[in-house]
Amino acid sequence: MATPLEDRAMDRAIELALRGAGRTHPNPVVGCVILDAAGEVVGEGWHEVAGGPHAEIAALAEAGERARGGTCVVTLEPCNHVGRTGPCSLALVAAGVTRVVIAVDDPNPEAAGGIATLRAAGVRVESGVRQEEAEAGNLHWLTAVRRRRPWVIWKYAATLDGRSAAADGTSKWITSPEARADVHALRGTADAIIAGAGTVLADDPQLTVRGAAGAAVPRQPLRVVADTAGRTPAGARVRDGAAPTWVATGAELGTGADGRVDLAALAAGLYARGVRVALLEGGPTLAGGFLAAGLVDEVVGYVAPKLLGAGRAALTGAGVPTIAEAIGLDLTDVTRVGPDLRFTALVRQKREG
Amino acid sequence: MATPLEDRAMDRAIELALRGAGRTHPNPVVGCVILDAAGEVVGEGWHEVAGGPHAEIAALAEAGERARGGTCVVTLEPCNHVGRTGPCSLALVAAGVTRVVIAVDDPNPEAAGGIATLRAAGVRVESGVRQEEAEAGNLHWLTAVRRRRPWVIWKYAATLDGRSAAADGTSKWITSPEARADVHALRGTADAIIAGAGTVLADDPQLTVRGAAGAAVPRQPLRVVADTAGRTPAGARVRDGAAPTWVATGAELGTGADGRVDLAALAAGLYARGVRVALLEGGPTLAGGFLAAGLVDEVVGYVAPKLLGAGRAALTGAGVPTIAEAIGLDLTDVTRVGPDLRFTALVRQKREG
Repeated sequence: MATPLEDRAMDRAIELALRGAGRTHPNPVVGCVILDAAGEVVGEGWHEVAGGPHAEIAALAEAGERARGGTCVVTLEPCNHVGRTGPCSLALVAAGVTRVVIAVDDPNPEAAGGIATLRAAGVRVESGVRQEEAEAGNLHWLTAVRRRRPWVIWKYAATLDGRSAAADGTSKWITSPEARADVHALRGTADAIIAGAGTVLADDPQLTVRGAAGAAVPRQPLRVVADTAGRTPAGARVRDGAAPTWVATGAELGTGADGRVDLAALAAGLYARGVRVALLEGGPTLAGGFLAAGLVDEVVGYVAPKLLGAGRAALTGAGVPTIAEAIGLDLTDVTRVGPDLRFTALVRQKREG
Repeated sequence: MATPLEDRAMDRAIELALRGAGRTHPNPVVGCVILDAAGEVVGEGWHEVAGGPHAEIAALAEAGERARGGTCVVTLEPCNHVGRTGPCSLALVAAGVTRVVIAVDDPNPEAAGGIATLRAAGVRVESGVRQEEAEAGNLHWLTAVRRRRPWVIWKYAATLDGRSAAADGTSKWITSPEARADVHALRGTADAIIAGAGTVLADDPQLTVRGAAGAAVPRQPLRVVADTAGRTPAGARVRDGAAPTWVATGAELGTGADGRVDLAALAAGLYARGVRVALLEGGPTLAGGFLAAGLVDEVVGYVAPKLLGAGRAALTGAGVPTIAEAIGLDLTDVTRVGPDLRFTALVRQKREG
């Protein structure tokens, strides 16, 4: 059992962790509080940015000698691997910490083992403290690591009657400048942006994050083209130097029963490239393929208050033949963005069977 | 110029008028305040229900002899015709009112003429006082009377991706019990419910208002089937005794360029039957026809948080070939109804040209 003091320290660690939200990809957010032997808070830290020090290292630095004989309260199992920073498990032992309280065990096999190392060194370890609250802050990352594939967000734009283009193919712009700016902010939270070759051929999108004028863009996501037959032209904007690009072909990944590039292999390939959150944009058939394969976790829809009554549907081929098998969503947010509405929803039925 | 006292009395009259909201069809809502010669409020009234006394008559009854030499402040031009109640213009003259302050002139040729009658009797009349506020309370009725066709609300239910049925035709039930109950409340605000013959043949709906268990339903709207070829079966539920029914055929109304029943003639026929607000329900083609003809004023969409990716679109054939000509809407409300969302929007482009 964690003591009330440790419990309170974990609340604080969860709060600290969230300061890194959106900046730690492909790492999780982590927060850490060091208590001295008397139970007083002597160090705080959080993982600020990928490549920067881990939360435990920052908190130990602040605590200094007062960590000796004390307790480390941390939202995620301390890492055990020599990555961009040394293993936190050994740093805690070296600092003389005698107890470690953990919210969530690290599901990442490359990083896990911290608890075993700590126990082998005689440190008393307790895990599972405030686990649910801590997991919420790392939902995308934990889900990705447990499944060995990215958290996939399908983003689309459509009219109120579900059309993403008019009968003549025109679609620029269904939604407002405000909605398009919001999409760039959404792209900025992803490690990869995925589009189908059809969309690349039709619209030649650059698939980069364009921030507000003058604002710095810290990191461009990986651009990914699901391109079964290798049709992406050499001169496509998606191949320019603005960001890294992966043209994922059927030749490289194999094809599924539908003759298109194997999307499970694509998702695994993204994971192997460090992608933990991927934004799936256009077109409707690729989105249908991802949904049919149970590979979509979240939906963000920008809906314009317009009616077309003809033209391309926002989604096709999701593999749902009858109403009882409709893919269920849990709406988490509905917000006005300029004249448009943005829906955010979690996909309820994974349909991964 | 209305005096500040009269202005304040008009605010009150507008407030009183709204007490009849939803109960006065096919009449407008009307509120009335009688001021005595000294400017004191001596009578208040509103039109409570179709068939009941007009607002002026109710206010005069309360004022009694104190109306003599006083002022009548009323949201709509007093009627001049002998309908279910006598003409209000003559009642005001008989009561000795010497001034009448009006917000909105009556656009209805059968009822108008009240101002002329009052003036001929030596009453000083001023109209246009707080007109905008008063019109808002009678938006549906005023629009209908001015256009000589009902205010038409297109109601639909669809998945988030705009499908109103799955690929195998199943659609019961896309939305939740809460949404379906809300539809019955919406039906209760209409004078008529319109469906196409295709919907009648496919789903055999009763098109009645079913209130909550035990609740009285004051009035059943007229059921209308847009039935070009007269296909509505004798045994269709829409023909049962629960409510009046009009099967509007091409033989009766003529057909438009698309070979379907002339929708402008249908709308005019509804108006002639006293319908001021009509609810258009299913199917997608009939809705497209109404929209293409510029006959839809408002849209109420029930959207379920589900995805289908196949199946019937919520709307077809609205006559929009390209994105620049999309039918624009002004969202007036978005509300959660059970697990679903209800959108309410006004149609911006009438496309009546």
